[in-house]
Amino acid sequence: MGALASFTCGAHNATGGMGLELTGPFPGAIAVGYQTSDGALHRLPFFVPSHSSEAERYREETIDAEAKTDRIITGLEREFLWATDRFATPEITFTVSTPFGPLPDPESAAPDALRFACCPVVHVTLRFTNDSTEAWRGFFGLDVGHRWALLDNRVDAGVIGAVSEESIGFASNSPSAKTFIDFSVEEALQPGSVRGNFLLGNMAGLIVEVPAGETVEVALALGFFRRGTATFNREMSYYYTRHFGGLAEVLNYGLANRDRYLAVTAERDAELAAASLNDEQKFLIAHATRSYYGSTQWLWDGTRSVWVVNEGEYLMMNTFDLTVDMLFFELRYNPWTVRNVLEEYVRHYSFFDQVFDPADPTTTYPGGISFTHDMGVMNHWSPRGRSSYEIGGLDRECFSHMTCEQLTNWVLCAGVYHAKTGDDDFLNRYTSTLLDCLESLENRDHHDPARRNGLMNLESNRTDGGGEITTYDSLDHSLGQSRANIYLGGKIWASGVLLEHLLSHVGHTDAAQQARALADRSAATLTEGFDEQLGFIPAVLEAGNASAIIPAIEALVYPYECGLRDAVSEDGPFGDYIAVLKRHLANIVKPGVCLYDDGGWKLSSSADNSWMSKIALCQYVARQVLGFDFGDDQLCTDRAHARWEREGSKLQACSDQFRSGIAHGSLYYPRIVTSILWLNEGR
Amino acid sequence: MGALASFTCGAHNATGGMGLELTGPFPGAIAVGYQTSDGALHRLPFFVPSHSSEAERYREETIDAEAKTDRIITGLEREFLWATDRFATPEITFTVSTPFGPLPDPESAAPDALRFACCPVVHVTLRFTNDSTEAWRGFFGLDVGHRWALLDNRVDAGVIGAVSEESIGFASNSPSAKTFIDFSVEEALQPGSVRGNFLLGNMAGLIVEVPAGETVEVALALGFFRRGTATFNREMSYYYTRHFGGLAEVLNYGLANRDRYLAVTAERDAELAAASLNDEQKFLIAHATRSYYGSTQWLWDGTRSVWVVNEGEYLMMNTFDLTVDMLFFELRYNPWTVRNVLEEYVRHYSFFDQVFDPADPTTTYPGGISFTHDMGVMNHWSPRGRSSYEIGGLDRECFSHMTCEQLTNWVLCAGVYHAKTGDDDFLNRYTSTLLDCLESLENRDHHDPARRNGLMNLESNRTDGGGEITTYDSLDHSLGQSRANIYLGGKIWASGVLLEHLLSHVGHTDAAQQARALADRSAATLTEGFDEQLGFIPAVLEAGNASAIIPAIEALVYPYECGLRDAVSEDGPFGDYIAVLKRHLANIVKPGVCLYDDGGWKLSSSADNSWMSKIALCQYVARQVLGFDFGDDQLCTDRAHARWEREGSKLQACSDQFRSGIAHGSLYYPRIVTSILWLNEGR
Repeated sequence: MGALASFTCGAHNATGGMGLELTGPFPGAIAVGYQTSDGALHRLPFFVPSHSSEAERYREETIDAEAKTDRIITGLEREFLWATDRFATPEITFTVSTPFGPLPDPESAAPDALRFACCPVVHVTLRFTNDSTEAWRGFFGLDVGHRWALLDNRVDAGVIGAVSEESIGFASNSPSAKTFIDFSVEEALQPGSVRGNFLLGNMAGLIVEVPAGETVEVALALGFFRRGTATFNREMSYYYTRHFGGLAEVLNYGLANRDRYLAVTAERDAELAAASLNDEQKFLIAHATRSYYGSTQWLWDGTRSVWVVNEGEYLMMNTFDLTVDMLFFELRYNPWTVRNVLEEYVRHYSFFDQVFDPADPTTTYPGGISFTHDMGVMNHWSPRGRSSYEIGGLDRECFSHMTCEQLTNWVLCAGVYHAKTGDDDFLNRYTSTLLDCLESLENRDHHDPARRNGLMNLESNRTDGGGEITTYDSLDHSLGQSRANIYLGGKIWASGVLLEHLLSHVGHTDAAQQARALADRSAATLTEGFDEQLGFIPAVLEAGNASAIIPAIEALVYPYECGLRDAVSEDGPFGDYIAVLKRHLANIVKPGVCLYDDGGWKLSSSADNSWMSKIALCQYVARQVLGFDFGDDQLCTDRAHARWEREGSKLQACSDQFRSGIAHGSLYYPRIVTSILWLNEGR
Repeated sequence: MGALASFTCGAHNATGGMGLELTGPFPGAIAVGYQTSDGALHRLPFFVPSHSSEAERYREETIDAEAKTDRIITGLEREFLWATDRFATPEITFTVSTPFGPLPDPESAAPDALRFACCPVVHVTLRFTNDSTEAWRGFFGLDVGHRWALLDNRVDAGVIGAVSEESIGFASNSPSAKTFIDFSVEEALQPGSVRGNFLLGNMAGLIVEVPAGETVEVALALGFFRRGTATFNREMSYYYTRHFGGLAEVLNYGLANRDRYLAVTAERDAELAAASLNDEQKFLIAHATRSYYGSTQWLWDGTRSVWVVNEGEYLMMNTFDLTVDMLFFELRYNPWTVRNVLEEYVRHYSFFDQVFDPADPTTTYPGGISFTHDMGVMNHWSPRGRSSYEIGGLDRECFSHMTCEQLTNWVLCAGVYHAKTGDDDFLNRYTSTLLDCLESLENRDHHDPARRNGLMNLESNRTDGGGEITTYDSLDHSLGQSRANIYLGGKIWASGVLLEHLLSHVGHTDAAQQARALADRSAATLTEGFDEQLGFIPAVLEAGNASAIIPAIEALVYPYECGLRDAVSEDGPFGDYIAVLKRHLANIVKPGVCLYDDGGWKLSSSADNSWMSKIALCQYVARQVLGFDFGDDQLCTDRAHARWEREGSKLQACSDQFRSGIAHGSLYYPRIVTSILWLNEGR
């Protein structure tokens, strides 16, 4: 957690491995298996079989691996729990444990709790069951792009292992294990090989004797470390460097505290197993959780912790339209990270702009506060008030500004954060920001109060005369354009609802009423937008648009999660709006509109580009907020979505964007943890 | 110099770029050219034309570069001087300056001289000559694997530029230049593009207005930096971090001191231009020099400087059998680096072993001191007394031990170092090491003094019963096997000659005589080895060997460079040996034996694997020591060798190992600077 580190494996005949700050799985071989007495290697399929060797770069001859007798183990059983991933045959069990849980607030927690939480380590258990009558050798090995060094005397007595560049490594305290370093496991385990630790090799690992008739278990810690300054422009280090002097210490600590970590693992596994969800849903939650943590970065700026979630393969930092989705996951475990991001946004990545009417781009009016799309990319913090992603001059295209949506995101995050934590100190300190946000929302609607309709109608001058987009940047205008968009309209409505609540709480009665009026306008416009002929609210309330979009309902989640149940009730003040959204959804979740043939959800009727994180969120809203029951179709839909990830994103772990079930963007992504909301259902 | 950094470009339709600690050229696009008023880009061919864009990872649509009007500039003139590489057409001149010269001894030099020498910067000059009647935009851009940040206020007023990861970057003080960051130069310079600095982009560069009828020149500094601890196991930083706080400071300093650097460049260029060598030879020297410096690493261990030359694509550190070849280059400029490596070898990478007769591998006898093959790989220092390369259990195969040859290498380096510097302090401090070396050489000949013949006959027990190899590790036994090898025999002879001289100098008369006796034995055995029927000394003095090898003469260079002219004279004490070597060489530098059809030298008649560094060295010995004059054939041979590098190693800069003129190993290599010796010829 917080190390922007990953150990990715599982796809058959594919590469994987350990890596830091990657945009995808590490492209190396993972060697797990055992050698029988005939010299044959029996390996789990976590590598791309090859007949060449790194050794050939050095040698004149071609290396003949003579691997004719080797075999890839098939018929694996896989158990994929919330924090445990286990591959098993009768002969071998390979278990990867990725415990996770609350990250203690670094401003108040005890050092030991912080140390335990931030230690960048993954736990592996290898078990070999040799029912044969001859001795085997079990092995585990990892490729790196670099070279290895042995841990030697830098760890506790009895611990062995190897590290590469002091940045990734493994250790074990298994009494019978021995390290190896070589070009490959085939070369290390050649009959008669005496290479031992061959420092030119790019693979290091362990070999363990497995006597006939015995079962041998090997405990391994896989550790990560990046020392010193890790980010640029704003120089920060990883938080774990406050608690660990280096990788050897991490590995040592990981092994010494293995039981504590495995207890956390078991707790999480049990928790998800007990949930009233089907197996496909549990899979999706477990898969998303790993991908989320692999993108997280717990940094230290010299004075305090800074929390960053990187945007999967793109590695944009704290992309705000992801923060607002991952909010629910983070508030469950560590609300301080949400507060941290909100504060960073105000301090470094807020700005005040002007707005203009697209019909007359040269005349500007006061805009107000908003926030950038992100805080930088690939460890490069962007300059104050700028994102890495947004550029001017684009009219509703990818890379344009998301000014209005990010404005709603700050309000929505702050509202849900306060509702879940009751952090009045935060609320008091940021009341002025909330007031600025309210004014900014109104100004983006229209400069003439009489012409406001509760949607976004004016564009930020940061677009240089172009047009803003939403988080659905690579979708068509049905979800990609901000102006008059009903998805964004929903978020503006929710912002109004939350602002009313927050500002009342701090005694700003007038402003609270103003916020309520904003919400009323949005609800009214969206309700009126329902097209009886179409049977839904068209995505963009502009002449001619006839796209049906599921995320029209998305923003209901915010009042609901704030406990403002009245606001999302058909009997409440926005009852008409809620009723219309029910009709909207009921009419579009249909084959040929917003359902794929396989039962998967299609967010927009006019685009083949569906986003898993948003599907999960909207499913929660449909079921839990709007009371939909999809009956037997639910399992079919969940199966489709799980298959999209398992098959359609096979080589990129958990991905967000799918075209007809095939991942084609936002790969290796953190955002899909919106599915955490499913655990609230039925409560 | 000393930054293990490279800016590689020049191959057409190929990638290149800036990089740190690489095993080959950086695989990015280099954008150099100008945009005419029709929007067309005119680019030097330093990129692989492509129709895809990094932007496609983010966007739904395919990016249509619409580059139909773009054109790649052809008809380039190239001027490749010792420190200047210039590409020119009438419209554009692109000049890369890589000044080099003496690295001052860090224990005695003034800080300013050290700062100037260690500054990790390369200088670029771009000149645009616009004879048209419309304005152009000139550009320069570089791809990285990461992302960019602008230098902003971190440099002198008027300086602009961009850096990536604080590790590579560029700056300019050209008044009219502006920075850009984008996915590519095509996207940055789209007509009407207003992107400016788009922080998601992986290319950054400069754009400069070139008004009609004007010539505009842009000065650029390209800088490198790696902060903090750079090496592992033994933690060291780059020496330049003692003088520069970061990359911005490096770039600023580079620009501010540009004139001083260009003066050094001009001095080197003039020096090589004035040499009595043909153009092919000058090319080979200039090419080798760049490849050498790109492999060098000037480190700081917290107390003192540590010099490392990395082994090209393999990045092994201070490979000793390269040190002994690069010795002549280093002694010309900075003898302290040679001393530094010799001292590191004694302190950390020396050992005492046992030896055995291959006929009876289990009986061992005293061996003696020797040195490891290298000190580690890819910034991983290997443990004390171990190399990264050598492993036991191999019988005269790649990766076996080079114990005897490395022993001769310490002696030969120490001898030449002392001869060139007169550093008696060093000699006094290491006399005991030289005595140990003498004893070790004798013990590796034979434990029974009566059976010694001046060659290596016993194997180190570090081979675990295998057999030692020479630096020619991927050649056949003619050069690859150490035992009874006449190439290694020559180095043993030269070690004896140098030891006699050194030990006399420090008053160890008996030991000096012992050394002389060793040299006498070697010379006698090698002389007797001449096979009248074959017309040469067979490579290995074992029954049946009939390979002819050029490096039989190689070791003559050491006494010669020590000024021990008598030792290499036909009229001197080893006159018979010298006369035989002359006959040997005269009989084998012939087509079908040790000449390729193109006139290139084939080091061994029995292997198609010729090494450029050794060819250069042996050519020097042949001409300068043995007095050969190859007449018109010389130019043909030089042309062949230059062609091997230019065509056969087109994408890997300067390489060492060639198979029939095609580089196939030891790519991007430092060792070829043995050609520096050619500058001594005729003196």
